[in-house]
Amino acid sequence: MIDSGEKLALIRVALKQSSIDAYIIPLSDPHLGENIPDHWKIIKWLTGFTGSAATVVIMDSFAGLWTDSRYFIQAETELEGSGFNLVKPKSSAPSDYTDWLVDNIDRNGRIAFNGRIISIASFRKLGKRLSNKNIDVLSDCDLISEIWKERPPMPLSEAWDFPGRFAGKDRSVKIAVLREEMKSKDVDLHLLTSVDDIMWLLNIRGNDVPYSPLCISYALVGETQFYLFVDQRKIPSILASEFRRLGIEVLPYGEVFVRISSLSGGDSIMITPSTTSVSLYNSIPSGVRIVEDISIPSRMKSKKNRTEIENISKVMVKDGVALTKFFRWIELNRGVSSMTELSLASRLQELRSQEEEYLGPSFSTIVAGNEHAALPHYSATDNSDAEIGENSILLIDSGGQYMGGTTDITRTISTGNPTQQQKKDFTLVLKGHIALAKARFPVGTHGYQIDMLARKALWDSGYDYGHGTGHGVGYCLNVHEGPQSISPADNKTILEAGMLISNEPALYRVGEYGIRTENLVICYQDEETEFGEFLKFDTVSLCYIDKSLIDRSLLTKDEMDWINSYHSEVSEKLSPHLNDEEKMWLKEKTESI
Amino acid sequence: MIDSGEKLALIRVALKQSSIDAYIIPLSDPHLGENIPDHWKIIKWLTGFTGSAATVVIMDSFAGLWTDSRYFIQAETELEGSGFNLVKPKSSAPSDYTDWLVDNIDRNGRIAFNGRIISIASFRKLGKRLSNKNIDVLSDCDLISEIWKERPPMPLSEAWDFPGRFAGKDRSVKIAVLREEMKSKDVDLHLLTSVDDIMWLLNIRGNDVPYSPLCISYALVGETQFYLFVDQRKIPSILASEFRRLGIEVLPYGEVFVRISSLSGGDSIMITPSTTSVSLYNSIPSGVRIVEDISIPSRMKSKKNRTEIENISKVMVKDGVALTKFFRWIELNRGVSSMTELSLASRLQELRSQEEEYLGPSFSTIVAGNEHAALPHYSATDNSDAEIGENSILLIDSGGQYMGGTTDITRTISTGNPTQQQKKDFTLVLKGHIALAKARFPVGTHGYQIDMLARKALWDSGYDYGHGTGHGVGYCLNVHEGPQSISPADNKTILEAGMLISNEPALYRVGEYGIRTENLVICYQDEETEFGEFLKFDTVSLCYIDKSLIDRSLLTKDEMDWINSYHSEVSEKLSPHLNDEEKMWLKEKTESI
Repeated sequence: MIDSGEKLALIRVALKQSSIDAYIIPLSDPHLGENIPDHWKIIKWLTGFTGSAATVVIMDSFAGLWTDSRYFIQAETELEGSGFNLVKPKSSAPSDYTDWLVDNIDRNGRIAFNGRIISIASFRKLGKRLSNKNIDVLSDCDLISEIWKERPPMPLSEAWDFPGRFAGKDRSVKIAVLREEMKSKDVDLHLLTSVDDIMWLLNIRGNDVPYSPLCISYALVGETQFYLFVDQRKIPSILASEFRRLGIEVLPYGEVFVRISSLSGGDSIMITPSTTSVSLYNSIPSGVRIVEDISIPSRMKSKKNRTEIENISKVMVKDGVALTKFFRWIELNRGVSSMTELSLASRLQELRSQEEEYLGPSFSTIVAGNEHAALPHYSATDNSDAEIGENSILLIDSGGQYMGGTTDITRTISTGNPTQQQKKDFTLVLKGHIALAKARFPVGTHGYQIDMLARKALWDSGYDYGHGTGHGVGYCLNVHEGPQSISPADNKTILEAGMLISNEPALYRVGEYGIRTENLVICYQDEETEFGEFLKFDTVSLCYIDKSLIDRSLLTKDEMDWINSYHSEVSEKLSPHLNDEEKMWLKEKTESI
Repeated sequence: MIDSGEKLALIRVALKQSSIDAYIIPLSDPHLGENIPDHWKIIKWLTGFTGSAATVVIMDSFAGLWTDSRYFIQAETELEGSGFNLVKPKSSAPSDYTDWLVDNIDRNGRIAFNGRIISIASFRKLGKRLSNKNIDVLSDCDLISEIWKERPPMPLSEAWDFPGRFAGKDRSVKIAVLREEMKSKDVDLHLLTSVDDIMWLLNIRGNDVPYSPLCISYALVGETQFYLFVDQRKIPSILASEFRRLGIEVLPYGEVFVRISSLSGGDSIMITPSTTSVSLYNSIPSGVRIVEDISIPSRMKSKKNRTEIENISKVMVKDGVALTKFFRWIELNRGVSSMTELSLASRLQELRSQEEEYLGPSFSTIVAGNEHAALPHYSATDNSDAEIGENSILLIDSGGQYMGGTTDITRTISTGNPTQQQKKDFTLVLKGHIALAKARFPVGTHGYQIDMLARKALWDSGYDYGHGTGHGVGYCLNVHEGPQSISPADNKTILEAGMLISNEPALYRVGEYGIRTENLVICYQDEETEFGEFLKFDTVSLCYIDKSLIDRSLLTKDEMDWINSYHSEVSEKLSPHLNDEEKMWLKEKTESI
């Protein structure tokens, strides 16, 4: 095994040979999604950094790593002696490696990267930033494969059929609707690069990556043809024959490049720039008309069907039961047995595992005490793991993958006597949560229009939080799923009935504590008036909200009514699945305020 | 004089000669702003249509005119016998002539237009819509000049110096700041195509078009050079010598094309695609690097300086005095003298004219009774002019150009006994107005994030209005001025201290009545907390709000406090300029609720 220094030296030799000034390595894979297999964890192998977001730039005299603020401390430690420097933004303004490149690369210089793991959208952004500099770009430059001797192979998990009682719609029906949509958009072919789109469309799942049941693959759909590019060993024979029946041809994973580059001129193909790699994009022959848009399956799957919605309701009960047992366990064992962030995370995982049709966590559980909770995406490590004592603020953000849906929920609890400020902060966040939960808005509304409902109470006090309020959630798929969102950022997708989305306002006091209250909501059609159709949200997550952190004097009657009615629903739906002691405990937690 | 039919026939002959399938005529001039001189009112001359927004498309067998719904009735009448058909959208979805072209032009067809009066931004949009059709485009096709014999010449009003006590900043200082900004953006040249940008930058005004004190011109600014392209007869000698002193070279208006087409390769030029014509854009030599963005002066002038803000406050008093006298006159003369929409508009103009430093209306006054008020941009004509009776809902939207600023204000009053529904509607609109007026938000907030404050009360009742809530306002310049806005539409411009913007939620009940309450607000810096700097609005328009339309039971205490405090301010600031009877009348109108 060679160390970071040697790897870096080898890369620099290669840079010199090809006259490359800067080599860029992203933390991504060819599908440009969130969860990536070990095979593509180049940055971890190269630098030792284990965080989930990073970019590396290597130059002759400098090697830097960019990540976000949640990983700054961890990165400093992990990068020590690696030859890589953590590059932090100079000001509070967001900045990334592209800003750094603009400042540090010479005019007429040459940059290179492996175009298989950078999206055409990111590449264009980079190109725009560097447009003044007349830079030469080498976009098919893989300097890693040769050096990385013990590289983990690509995952080889078997795909499995996702039953109709969970999917709600046959794969044949989904494919037919997709083809209809393609026709209405006047495109001959649709390239699917996001693995979750393919899983949803074909009613299959896999186990290739952590946290999301994916089987890594591409698909190319035409009016009659359907190519699925996947390691054929991963498709069990029963699925293979079903695919044959539907005219789905299974081809080797790498064959996607062959098929794309042999398209005929005059064809039109729909692709999604943010999930299509530079290499795949560049392999499209020049006569082919390219239509760029969010993929059709991603729009289709964002609106959950009736079966999915029914299953989500059932899954929320299971998840709520596990959470109730978990929070009760904390209360009973506080001061009795030792309790750390990591041990609590395992305990929660254990309790979820007792529920039927549970597949695993939907993301790395966040259990964060006091000042750790002030880091929105804190993830405890052996080094940071902290004991949870009395009078702590404890933030727990977790979720599960169930056959009937994906959950994501955050509760902040107090393990003792909260301060007045903590109660005020918690209550202002709760007011925002309630305002969004109760929102009513006309069809055509974008998430960015209603984001401020969740912030108004905070803004009025001069507070704010630095992330979006809501992300879309998949169905037994990715916990972060587009295209919808509720956030200050512009998003062209309107909110529609059937969309599942999180409602998670927060407040972070650096060095002290953090507060976040998150439920999932489903958008549904409300009344129609002479001014149009209106939509509302139905809150589906089921877990009590810690009343000991509520300052009643800050709430309106309507807000208290919402809390009481939510708590009755929680108690009513969970109690049948709890034993008597648990029931009693929950009754108290959900009693009217 | 030839009639529409003959003009159309002549154009069709020309189409045939040049094998053109469709000829497009927009209602715009080479500066692509809102108010255009008669010289460019081709559509009025050609079709008889006098509305302020339209596009014409002429084909061999069809000639169509597109306008928005407010002009549908008027257009049907005015187009009668002209050979032009009014084209209404098929569904409620927005649609324009480009959608129609997509459906009606053949593959490999040829379209043509005068590229001097279509922006490169609109042209690209059109090109994108037609990208499937392999259309040939003739972008320098003027078929009108030859046919239009008695065409009005370009306006020739004299430019005048806008004094420092109103401008607040010397033209030399503004130019120096602009050049600094250009340097920081790494551009050698900045082409200014929006006339109001040039007026603001050079502290001059003119009288070339109605409603806005503009002197039609282009400017090209470099690090040392400054070319002003304007008919030299319009520049009085005192201004001319001041310009010489500052190194501003005055060149003939048409010379802009010569200068632009003779730029050297390697130069970079900043342009604004929405206000740069296709012709001007195409005349940029190919070696020149084009940077596209909102113009720098438009960003600069959007943040009013201290002198401007002080003057705006004074102007609001003048405007408020005229409005108070006007509304009192209505109340006293109701049922006594005849009162129509048009006669009221003249009366208001007369009262504003009595104020010092008043230049004229800032847009065509809207006085709209009952069902006319349900058309957001209704403009009374001799045909539509209606008598205002008892028990009417009267909406008046008007504004003035003063040396010290531009006003824009809407009030809705009742001239009798409003119904319960009218009071509810008025109060819900008012709740939205107040919510926005009281808004507090962090630096970095976009208008689209806070737009819903003005809608929430309406949405909660299933109501809505179909336009934005706020537009930027110029300073003794255009009443609609970018780049900021408060609207559901995505707008990349953040709200900043010093911005002047309207707050105008509304409700329209088609066929019955319309309600709108509009004040102008100035954004200012509020407190700074550990979470960042916060901004607020200061409401600057001064005119009572009709209490007879308020349903107190729908208001919170905070909302009533806002109304009472606003009303005290109105009374306090306007009373010193009113006679005793007027003072008493206003006292009653602004008494606490």
